[in-house]
Amino acid sequence: MYRSHNNGALNLSNTGQEVTLSGWVQKIRDKGFMIWVDLRDRYGITQLIFDEERTEKALIEQAKTLGREFVIQVRGTVIERQSKNTKIPTGEIEILVTDLTILNEAKLPPFTIEDETDGGEELRMKYRYLDIRRNPVKDSLIFRSKVTQEVRNFLSNEDFIEVETPYLIKSTPEGARDFVVPSRMNEGQFYALPQSPQTFKQLLMVGGMDKYFQIVKCFRDEDLRADRQPEFTQIDCEMAFVEQEDILNIFEGLTRHLLKKVNNVEIGDFPRMTFDHAMKTYGNDKPDIRFGMEFGELNEVTKHRNFKVFDDAELVVGIAVPGAASYTRKEIDKLINWVKRPQIGALGMIYVKCNEDGTFKSSVDKFYNQEDLANWAEKTGAKPGDLICVLSGITNKVRAQMSALRMELAERLGLRKPNEFAPLWVIDFPLLELDEETGHYHAMHHPFTSPKPGQLELLDSKPGEVKANAYDLVLNGNEIGGGSIRIHDKEIQATMLKHLGFSEEEAKAQFGFLMDAFEYGAPPHGGLAFGLDRLVAILAGKETIRDFIAFPKNNAGRDVMIDAPSALDEAQLKELNLQLDIVQEIE
Amino acid sequence: MYRSHNNGALNLSNTGQEVTLSGWVQKIRDKGFMIWVDLRDRYGITQLIFDEERTEKALIEQAKTLGREFVIQVRGTVIERQSKNTKIPTGEIEILVTDLTILNEAKLPPFTIEDETDGGEELRMKYRYLDIRRNPVKDSLIFRSKVTQEVRNFLSNEDFIEVETPYLIKSTPEGARDFVVPSRMNEGQFYALPQSPQTFKQLLMVGGMDKYFQIVKCFRDEDLRADRQPEFTQIDCEMAFVEQEDILNIFEGLTRHLLKKVNNVEIGDFPRMTFDHAMKTYGNDKPDIRFGMEFGELNEVTKHRNFKVFDDAELVVGIAVPGAASYTRKEIDKLINWVKRPQIGALGMIYVKCNEDGTFKSSVDKFYNQEDLANWAEKTGAKPGDLICVLSGITNKVRAQMSALRMELAERLGLRKPNEFAPLWVIDFPLLELDEETGHYHAMHHPFTSPKPGQLELLDSKPGEVKANAYDLVLNGNEIGGGSIRIHDKEIQATMLKHLGFSEEEAKAQFGFLMDAFEYGAPPHGGLAFGLDRLVAILAGKETIRDFIAFPKNNAGRDVMIDAPSALDEAQLKELNLQLDIVQEIE
Repeated sequence: MYRSHNNGALNLSNTGQEVTLSGWVQKIRDKGFMIWVDLRDRYGITQLIFDEERTEKALIEQAKTLGREFVIQVRGTVIERQSKNTKIPTGEIEILVTDLTILNEAKLPPFTIEDETDGGEELRMKYRYLDIRRNPVKDSLIFRSKVTQEVRNFLSNEDFIEVETPYLIKSTPEGARDFVVPSRMNEGQFYALPQSPQTFKQLLMVGGMDKYFQIVKCFRDEDLRADRQPEFTQIDCEMAFVEQEDILNIFEGLTRHLLKKVNNVEIGDFPRMTFDHAMKTYGNDKPDIRFGMEFGELNEVTKHRNFKVFDDAELVVGIAVPGAASYTRKEIDKLINWVKRPQIGALGMIYVKCNEDGTFKSSVDKFYNQEDLANWAEKTGAKPGDLICVLSGITNKVRAQMSALRMELAERLGLRKPNEFAPLWVIDFPLLELDEETGHYHAMHHPFTSPKPGQLELLDSKPGEVKANAYDLVLNGNEIGGGSIRIHDKEIQATMLKHLGFSEEEAKAQFGFLMDAFEYGAPPHGGLAFGLDRLVAILAGKETIRDFIAFPKNNAGRDVMIDAPSALDEAQLKELNLQLDIVQEIE
Repeated sequence: MYRSHNNGALNLSNTGQEVTLSGWVQKIRDKGFMIWVDLRDRYGITQLIFDEERTEKALIEQAKTLGREFVIQVRGTVIERQSKNTKIPTGEIEILVTDLTILNEAKLPPFTIEDETDGGEELRMKYRYLDIRRNPVKDSLIFRSKVTQEVRNFLSNEDFIEVETPYLIKSTPEGARDFVVPSRMNEGQFYALPQSPQTFKQLLMVGGMDKYFQIVKCFRDEDLRADRQPEFTQIDCEMAFVEQEDILNIFEGLTRHLLKKVNNVEIGDFPRMTFDHAMKTYGNDKPDIRFGMEFGELNEVTKHRNFKVFDDAELVVGIAVPGAASYTRKEIDKLINWVKRPQIGALGMIYVKCNEDGTFKSSVDKFYNQEDLANWAEKTGAKPGDLICVLSGITNKVRAQMSALRMELAERLGLRKPNEFAPLWVIDFPLLELDEETGHYHAMHHPFTSPKPGQLELLDSKPGEVKANAYDLVLNGNEIGGGSIRIHDKEIQATMLKHLGFSEEEAKAQFGFLMDAFEYGAPPHGGLAFGLDRLVAILAGKETIRDFIAFPKNNAGRDVMIDAPSALDEAQLKELNLQLDIVQEIE
């Protein structure tokens, strides 16, 4: 037996007990006549003491050989500490050691195993097994486990069934790129790894397996942006005989359950907002509504003053930044430079200071009088002391720019409080989205999303205006889930695929099994999927997902710890009937 | 709202209520003046009634258009049934329908959606979404979900943390074949799909993430035998600071919990048996101990009677088949032919009938007298009325043959009762196994398994005799789990890899990250993995796993429903820098 207790378990009530503990040496303080060792495991830290008066000399000598991260086992007696540490559960006791066994030695770690470490990100990823020993990473993984268990408890109580769908499926060129898996047994053929279990969960609904869920890995071979992973985890759900309202209620319940269980926060009914309203008011389909700074559209109140920039703009839009009228010219210039960065791409920014005395001072005083600016203040909801920031240009672009500015300012003003939670349903998404490069419309969610009743007719005439029974769940400015009511009618599905540019043959080859299934009694159905990695991060008050993934990959899709991907040997390639098609460089 | 209740919910207490139900038409009985429809969903069946006296004519006409598997919604009133069906919860009521909406029509299914179907296996796999509507499959999937939820409940209560390990990892030629995944972003390189999360869970232990579990898909590109799947699910577990005893206790607890929760069976301490004893007594390392027929070794008592077959045999072994002395000559001949089939491969079988009067009649009476045969009876535990079956030959082979015969006879005699559960730990597995083809030893479990203390020295002299801290959990003659205490010392791991034929470079290239990790303070650790698919099947009293997998693949590794794997288009291959290396047949 390696331990009678873990290192977070002992307290004053155990005083006098003989105990056995195991763990890692976190810290050693050697005062010569007295040595303290902090012993660490998953559960906490227990202080060990060796001292000249009470400890055998040989044992003290042995303790002096210990180094950081050594793995040891000790036996000893629980005694009361002289100087207590009330911050940890074991802080009132220590162990007077009588036996010490070194279970494994340790080289000096390449970075310190402390909450604040000196290790850079690449180094910590290479030695991820050491990084996981640090509380911030360890606690994140434990937190994730707790969240998933609560998800399962809630859904199981709601009579959902967890069904595993296959990982070796069929490649579909639609959507993002698939990772593929050559089949040795089926020469020249490939499986694909699922980007989501979408079609399978729909088939489960056709199969009557109402109320399905699964916490499942999904795969996308995309050029990775920061904080994207080639493999990621979804909470995937689907229900039959439901309308949008049923789905929103269930998953609002799930989210409320998680906020209560893991954050101890009680939230009432989630607000709902249409996609159009979100875009108009926040420039964004996943608005952070923990703070205001709602968009005020200023086209009407900026016209006819000979300010050509605004007169020519499709959209003129402003936000009121609370308390920012006091910004210096230098601070405002920095803000203007910020919106002009290529990542944001604004050409400039007009501002109005709303003085405490009710007057206004703007960068366009040449064109606009106090009455004009008062109108702007009204439209943006600006109060004395606020700064109105105004951008203009093409609607889509200026909304995105203003949204970025709004989020940046909120960040700077401390309005994005990690422990405040503001969930929001965004509903009535467009069915189709214009690809500006190709000029073609493609499915905004996926080709199985149902248009709103009666809107199918608009597909030909005004494809961009067709709204879908599609919804996203937004939490603190992040999309944490999204879904839709699906098409369950074979004819409508065929029409949709045609509009998305699939020939009849392509549709049959890729989705034939789903279309076939729809002929045998498909029920109305719909669902939702949460991005678990992000959900967990946001519930923990963080926005980067990497610490919530045990073994993440870097931005090149590499696991730098195990050094994957890597080359295969010739025999393996041959068995798979593959050749590399790589131009060898001539040396 | 599609339904106020599901189809398993209503009973006499709801009489008089107006309800809305949705589901599939299971059955229609049309008596002309009266039509009954069985409406089915995941939860049950509710009987609908339309009758001339109480139902509008138009509605009756509409009901007559219904076909099997149509998806419908009805409104109506709950009324008491005339002829009650006490076998189902809703059997005392029916719904007098006032509104009927056909939500989706259905073509005639290619097989009947009944508990006993007329569909063959391939057909049912092609239309798996219809097969899932059948109770046996539906119930199996729901059962599986319940088992996994109970696994998670138990392990979470025991303070285990579920951690997700990556799916895109590194290929290792050791063990079975990997499925590989070409990396587009890392030209010419491949990921591999995990055969198990073995190294990752060990790294989690090095990382201090004590008490890990995961229910996780694993992948093996093997030539498929019946009832093997290229992707399968493991309950994967690992613990730090444990000895074998700690692990056996936890997972015996888990298994006991499952038997209690899902089977309502209480089981005491699980028996334990060494590998050597299991092989000697049952010819098998996963013995079914629900019944006797233990092996009696007969070499000593068959010698010196000039029966050359036995005298020359390495092993002569018999079992007593209860009550089988009454077998006719024809029945015994059939048995002899059964053991001579190529799948079993015995050259013949000797038998002894133990007559009720205490005398014996054998097929070798020419060589053995009554006293000899009495000795055989004693060694095999045969009682009057039993039949002793005796095989002889090379130890390993004859044990396997006798084990197969024992299982076959138990099956025929109805001794393998699906609702009786006999768990068993098999311990002290050999560390290494001789590959008879190559003459080399390889790791019986995997290269990270720890030899028993003090046995490392035998590696050179008697590699076959080194025992490991390795154990299997056996249930009703099936291995449902297996694991070991791992090596946590870098030197021992290096020695093991050397003995397994890895050069230092190979060891470094493949397991370098694990060996490196062992330098930074690896704790003693060990674990276990359950094969979930089989575990679930056995708990349900079945032995085939396919019905417990929502979308299984066939024996060629194909998903015949979605028709995967399939060809990729040229562009996809090009992006992956791959060419097919297939000899095109000239037409």
